[in-house]
Amino acid sequence: MKFNIITGEILSAIKAIVGEDAVITQHEGLERYSHDETEDLSYYPDIVVKPKSVQEVSALMKLCNKHLIPVTPRGAGTGLSGGALPVKGGVLLAMERFNQVLNIDEENLQATVEPGVITEVFMDMVATKNLLYPVDPASKGSCFIGGNVSHGSGGPRVVKYGTIREYILNLEVVLPNGEIIWTGANTLKYASGYNLTQLMIGSEGTLGIITKIVVKLIPRPTQDALMMASFSTNESACAAVSAIFRAGIVPSALEFMERKGVEWVIKYDDINFDLKDGIEAFLLIEVDGTDQEVIFSDCEKINNVLEQFDCKEVLFADSSAQKEELWRLRRTMAVSVKSNSIYKEEDTVVPRAQLPQLIKGIKEIGGRYGFESVCYGHAGDGNLHVNIIKGNMSDEDWHNKLKNGIREIFELTVSLGGTLSGEHGIGLVQREFMSIKYSNVHFELWRGIKNVFDKKGILNPGKIF
Amino acid sequence: MKFNIITGEILSAIKAIVGEDAVITQHEGLERYSHDETEDLSYYPDIVVKPKSVQEVSALMKLCNKHLIPVTPRGAGTGLSGGALPVKGGVLLAMERFNQVLNIDEENLQATVEPGVITEVFMDMVATKNLLYPVDPASKGSCFIGGNVSHGSGGPRVVKYGTIREYILNLEVVLPNGEIIWTGANTLKYASGYNLTQLMIGSEGTLGIITKIVVKLIPRPTQDALMMASFSTNESACAAVSAIFRAGIVPSALEFMERKGVEWVIKYDDINFDLKDGIEAFLLIEVDGTDQEVIFSDCEKINNVLEQFDCKEVLFADSSAQKEELWRLRRTMAVSVKSNSIYKEEDTVVPRAQLPQLIKGIKEIGGRYGFESVCYGHAGDGNLHVNIIKGNMSDEDWHNKLKNGIREIFELTVSLGGTLSGEHGIGLVQREFMSIKYSNVHFELWRGIKNVFDKKGILNPGKIF
Repeated sequence: MKFNIITGEILSAIKAIVGEDAVITQHEGLERYSHDETEDLSYYPDIVVKPKSVQEVSALMKLCNKHLIPVTPRGAGTGLSGGALPVKGGVLLAMERFNQVLNIDEENLQATVEPGVITEVFMDMVATKNLLYPVDPASKGSCFIGGNVSHGSGGPRVVKYGTIREYILNLEVVLPNGEIIWTGANTLKYASGYNLTQLMIGSEGTLGIITKIVVKLIPRPTQDALMMASFSTNESACAAVSAIFRAGIVPSALEFMERKGVEWVIKYDDINFDLKDGIEAFLLIEVDGTDQEVIFSDCEKINNVLEQFDCKEVLFADSSAQKEELWRLRRTMAVSVKSNSIYKEEDTVVPRAQLPQLIKGIKEIGGRYGFESVCYGHAGDGNLHVNIIKGNMSDEDWHNKLKNGIREIFELTVSLGGTLSGEHGIGLVQREFMSIKYSNVHFELWRGIKNVFDKKGILNPGKIF
Repeated sequence: MKFNIITGEILSAIKAIVGEDAVITQHEGLERYSHDETEDLSYYPDIVVKPKSVQEVSALMKLCNKHLIPVTPRGAGTGLSGGALPVKGGVLLAMERFNQVLNIDEENLQATVEPGVITEVFMDMVATKNLLYPVDPASKGSCFIGGNVSHGSGGPRVVKYGTIREYILNLEVVLPNGEIIWTGANTLKYASGYNLTQLMIGSEGTLGIITKIVVKLIPRPTQDALMMASFSTNESACAAVSAIFRAGIVPSALEFMERKGVEWVIKYDDINFDLKDGIEAFLLIEVDGTDQEVIFSDCEKINNVLEQFDCKEVLFADSSAQKEELWRLRRTMAVSVKSNSIYKEEDTVVPRAQLPQLIKGIKEIGGRYGFESVCYGHAGDGNLHVNIIKGNMSDEDWHNKLKNGIREIFELTVSLGGTLSGEHGIGLVQREFMSIKYSNVHFELWRGIKNVFDKKGILNPGKIF
């Protein structure tokens, strides 16, 4: 695909659509839009455009479609797969001014939000009405809900409450040719034509620009308990995970953390945690509901399960401050690890009982390739984030040899019935590994779908496949 | 699209693929495949083919694709939108021999089933392992799980446990050109390319033939309570529905039934129910969980809500026999109503707080067009099934005038933020109403997607759009 450059005339037309102030052309202004949270990659757009209304997005898309200008939509830039990087230059479409919660419908337990709303801001807002929007990625304090939709993002509570797919009811979308549609209806179910809402979720900004999101809300649980279980091996911690479900409990969070991750959080952050010798792995387990006694009884059952898996200690958080502290430990793990070294974060997902094999295999691969890794993630979903640390690895090995090690990790993931990404998306950096899992038939179907939505291929080019 | 007829040569090739015994060509043998549960429609296929393996399906599709023979896949034939009717003749692909539960993975809480497994058979099988597959359409005793996937089917428990979309993890699919793919991975979440699994769900057999289904299972609740609340008006019953959720309760079922529906069940079936004067509508409300006290407390809260909505009586089922009886009352409503008259069943869905307006409007439209209707459905999801009764309506009015009344019902549904079908699909009979809700842009996207999967248009032609 050959794209055109943004001429002076096109730039004037863009400014006429969104206003002068909503366009950045100066190199220094572009810097913060040239990267996301993916490794140390940097791609500068030619310009950044910050529309404010669906009509502006529509007019912009028509213009760029006509002139073959690549357009890369961007949320908060917290992505971990390079999905928002403008690898072909052109227009970076920053959605940050779409930052309004338009409506919270307490009759129907629905809300309509703009894509640039920060996830946690929205969660807090519905919490004041005793409602829950349970899709809470670790980056919830900074990520946008539109980016969550685009990447099929998850978070700890998916394990009980279901994926983001269960909470997105309807989307207003601007297609690459400028047409504006609602993908579905504001209803809890829907069997009327191919489900365009579901197709948009996880499409990483390659099919259309999301401008409004209708989400489902649920009553908020009133009680919860949080426990932190310590294990002497990764394998025993991972093995306990599927046993908890087999005991009939569905925790509202079931997170795995390696010792090294905890060590780095303690170093990076001011967290009060007594890290004992001989402990290699942790499970952070939350149970929620409406009745404290039931929650205690569930915790007891979980405790009984843990005892069968060589669990060394179980810490029950006995105050909301302590709960907050333990959650902060988990949530700041990504940034803590990353602050210590150059890194690459891979997002693996397997059927949950395969977690022990996955983690064992990752360490074995690391041993052969000479890299250290720190693993943590949503163990209840079989979703393990693998942070590969450069540490003392030579630049030569890091840039060339490591790729084969990552390939082996994904080959292992796929051989265990899993896939490349559970919630971070494919974006730019996992693209080359897609063929481990998917055949030409898949690629043809995907390219075909892309072509239906975006005949000229201007929208977020160079991503997924 | 111009299709070819099945020549003697093609028939021989088909018999060579599946075996002589798996092909029906005699007119009397075709009869039971010429209709489903949709009104009194009948379309004969040229032949019925009953493959047994994915390889046979693949070979069949290659052959039919090459020779431009239409292929209509069929599950149990319990569909309510004519989706399995072979309107263009050709091959009726009966999936009834794909009837094995291949694996129940208790470690991962997953199962792999063939599409021709009866939903209730599967539910009962996992129940013996204390697991729950919660997608239970009213027809669960006869419908196939493959048909449920194809139509995005629901059932009473969607309201608590989520739609079928949350439970289908991965699908083995034969594409119209004979290629065999798995749509995704056997994982609880998935962010790797456009989600083909979700695209297949609700695609009504127009994109590919489903040959294996990987489903998610959850721990089975151990306790439940069932209550039947009586109201003097439809509107007050419907208004109570959204108030229950606003009170912080998520029931495991919340079903609405009109008096007339109950009357007809009593007439049709041997059901012991004391139908009192002055009662016009019922809510059947189930709460489940693991603790009897919490369930009782939830029932009490529900009771308090009901009292605010002019509820006349609440009957608590005090034995499993009585629960079974009340559920039978609800489940046999469709067949009972239909046994009394020629009928048309429409499947409307709106945001749940709009139910009172919907039902009021339906009665008003019925008054103007001179038709009687019996409404019931999954009120907790805002999903109302509208059975229109021919009764004393003249044939002329039934065949000509009624269509405008149905159109008005769907216009009302859409004006309330809803859509044409919540769980029955569009199939053949709702096709003409799709333009009430959807624009040419939607139709173009859908046709484009169809074309990506089925370039020659041989698979289930004449459906959805």
